[in-house]
Amino acid sequence: MQDIFVKDISAYQGQEVRLKGWVRNIRSSGKLIFIIFRDGTGTIQAVAFKPDLDEATFEDAKRLTLESSLIITGISKQHPKNPNEYELNITGIQTIQISEDYPITKKEHGPDFLLSNRHLWLRSPKQWAIMRIRHKVYLAICEYLHENNFFRFDSPILTPNACEGTTTLFELEYFDVGKAYLSQSGQLYLETGIMSLGRVYDFGPVFRAERSKTRKHLTEFWMMDAEAAFVEHDENMQIQEDLIRHVIRSVLSECDSELDILERDKGALKAADAPFKRMTHFEAIEYLRAKGSDIDHSSDLGAQDETLITEESQVPIFIEKWPKEIKAFYMKRDPNNEDYVLGSDLIAPEGFGEIIGGSQREDDHDLLLSRMKAEKMDIEAYQWYLDLRKYGSVPHSGFGIGLERLVTWMSGIHHIRETIPYPRMIYRIYP
Amino acid sequence: MQDIFVKDISAYQGQEVRLKGWVRNIRSSGKLIFIIFRDGTGTIQAVAFKPDLDEATFEDAKRLTLESSLIITGISKQHPKNPNEYELNITGIQTIQISEDYPITKKEHGPDFLLSNRHLWLRSPKQWAIMRIRHKVYLAICEYLHENNFFRFDSPILTPNACEGTTTLFELEYFDVGKAYLSQSGQLYLETGIMSLGRVYDFGPVFRAERSKTRKHLTEFWMMDAEAAFVEHDENMQIQEDLIRHVIRSVLSECDSELDILERDKGALKAADAPFKRMTHFEAIEYLRAKGSDIDHSSDLGAQDETLITEESQVPIFIEKWPKEIKAFYMKRDPNNEDYVLGSDLIAPEGFGEIIGGSQREDDHDLLLSRMKAEKMDIEAYQWYLDLRKYGSVPHSGFGIGLERLVTWMSGIHHIRETIPYPRMIYRIYP
Repeated sequence: MQDIFVKDISAYQGQEVRLKGWVRNIRSSGKLIFIIFRDGTGTIQAVAFKPDLDEATFEDAKRLTLESSLIITGISKQHPKNPNEYELNITGIQTIQISEDYPITKKEHGPDFLLSNRHLWLRSPKQWAIMRIRHKVYLAICEYLHENNFFRFDSPILTPNACEGTTTLFELEYFDVGKAYLSQSGQLYLETGIMSLGRVYDFGPVFRAERSKTRKHLTEFWMMDAEAAFVEHDENMQIQEDLIRHVIRSVLSECDSELDILERDKGALKAADAPFKRMTHFEAIEYLRAKGSDIDHSSDLGAQDETLITEESQVPIFIEKWPKEIKAFYMKRDPNNEDYVLGSDLIAPEGFGEIIGGSQREDDHDLLLSRMKAEKMDIEAYQWYLDLRKYGSVPHSGFGIGLERLVTWMSGIHHIRETIPYPRMIYRIYP
Repeated sequence: MQDIFVKDISAYQGQEVRLKGWVRNIRSSGKLIFIIFRDGTGTIQAVAFKPDLDEATFEDAKRLTLESSLIITGISKQHPKNPNEYELNITGIQTIQISEDYPITKKEHGPDFLLSNRHLWLRSPKQWAIMRIRHKVYLAICEYLHENNFFRFDSPILTPNACEGTTTLFELEYFDVGKAYLSQSGQLYLETGIMSLGRVYDFGPVFRAERSKTRKHLTEFWMMDAEAAFVEHDENMQIQEDLIRHVIRSVLSECDSELDILERDKGALKAADAPFKRMTHFEAIEYLRAKGSDIDHSSDLGAQDETLITEESQVPIFIEKWPKEIKAFYMKRDPNNEDYVLGSDLIAPEGFGEIIGGSQREDDHDLLLSRMKAEKMDIEAYQWYLDLRKYGSVPHSGFGIGLERLVTWMSGIHHIRETIPYPRMIYRIYP
């Protein structure tokens, strides 16, 4: 008999097959027992019909509980009413373990309880669906990058310096060398990679020791940073747009049942797969002020501003050309107006906020050096970064995608903590 | 005119194209200037012939130096002697930056100098080739896993506990929660993932604060951990073998020119793509003793032992069924002999040492608990891990591949530090 996965059941119509997994749910009704069976690849209803089975097998089925593990044999059968659905007519059951008093039940559990039982919560249908979408989003990003000549270039986590300020860094002792810090972004290292490989990306965990307790913050999260030689500001945004649209299409085409489980509005996702809008920071402020905000032209945008800007848009919006004071030292100045930088933030629709930050980088050695001095950075520690502007400097740009924010948007869920297997927040590091 | 990458040059035979990149090398001979031009995707010889060019362009070409950046236009031409090679007959040059006194020259540089200039060293042909092979190895591992129903499940870096001992952990303060440790392995978390997704893997940085200064040790390195429900010891080894053979074939077919640059013995790689050998730890010790070693049956294998075991084998060798005392608490005991565990190490040929460690995991709650108590582990801290054996426990197995060790073997190089963009060793964290 064939060992198969639930996802492949339709290929075995009418055949007896063997499946290995867990009981998601069970109910009985006289001579019938209905087992909602899952194996990680999918879920299927398996039916034990007393007259078809020997006494012992039917009794085994009866004893099963939520999350018991078992090997089940049965005949694959198309659902009489829904030809896309299959059922299993049980012919045999081999119980592996009876699960007693599984803690997560149908009643409402509070977030603290669920987070403390994250190792079990992950089995719930919605969490399963989000993890599968996370997998697909990760892969879709890589697919796009590989098709566009980007190579992996894993930047280090243990770093001697801070890339974006020192107040939000996790710090540790590194042997006899002194302090080391957990990376907040691989960007500066990636810039070295383009000088070898042309286009590079990294995709791994980054860390912010921020005391923010919002539904959009994690202290450990996954970031994809991409960097490309000879790409300038406009093309940089075009790459981001093409990449995000590729992700949307991949999720829609390959995570259909996961989106159903999450009751995600697929129409909203489909609508976002259209040319993105672009506005300058100046225009964004004007727009907000016209809507009644008293924000001024030197301000960064907060979460509420981002929501207000996108509330009438079905597609993401690039906010580009930011005042130089509120963006990082490495961004290239706008040649048309030195008070602005060639940076962009991409804001998702539906109130999901910023998902990408990017910019063209300053490629002039002396300009970069003067800005680093103005920010009182330790020049010696960043000599390697300055070297890139001494030996064959080229125009280049890059951007960073927060994986969890993108998954939050794709999944249409409220809180970022559900988009990573083990969320790390200021009050939580267990399990 | 078309902007193209060097890798695509053969499609533009006889056409004028534009390329953007750097000078790898330059020499002149009377009316001819030969520029070895690279753009990250490949290298091509570009020839400036004085009679074909206006004076200024030829003078621009003359002024170019090692690692200067430029945009070059020219006509793609098949090499007269080697039809696989192309040349560029230069029609125009736009210098972006003249690089002065590039520090890495043709003379021999010591490892300290090269490591301190890692950001520049990465541009050298061998380092470029190794980074490309690393990219391909990473992808080939993922390809195999996806084809075999494994899903990404990123385990956390910041963890409250130590997975394999506490002496080699990097430690940091986590807000008001207390100490956190950088993960040495995602395995225990992955085991929770199989209960949701069936088969999972993670692939990211892990950390060992080991005071080892050998050519095989890094303090930060990349590890792929895979874990599968309902997979037992023998099938676990088969998956590892199939995966590694897939990687070998991918590297051979897609990194041919990189292997040439590294002067890698491709015959040795080809020969390794054949059924792997298996021997028990007991047999391995017997074998070593027959070769003159005085190692005893309760000993772990050192690097020299690994080399001795594989020196007459063209294929990797699994060493399986280890004495329980020298392996981790979570490994399942061999039902045929309780003194051994169902674990395996995979040893690469050619002296490259261990590249995978794996095992079937203990799935019995009480047995696992008693072993954790025997090792004086903090039971409460690992309650989540024990829970997996309470609620639907299933037989399962997994393994971990050290990416850098695998890349070292594929590349045929001596020192692991060249296989990661920015190696971290006990005396080095810069750049």
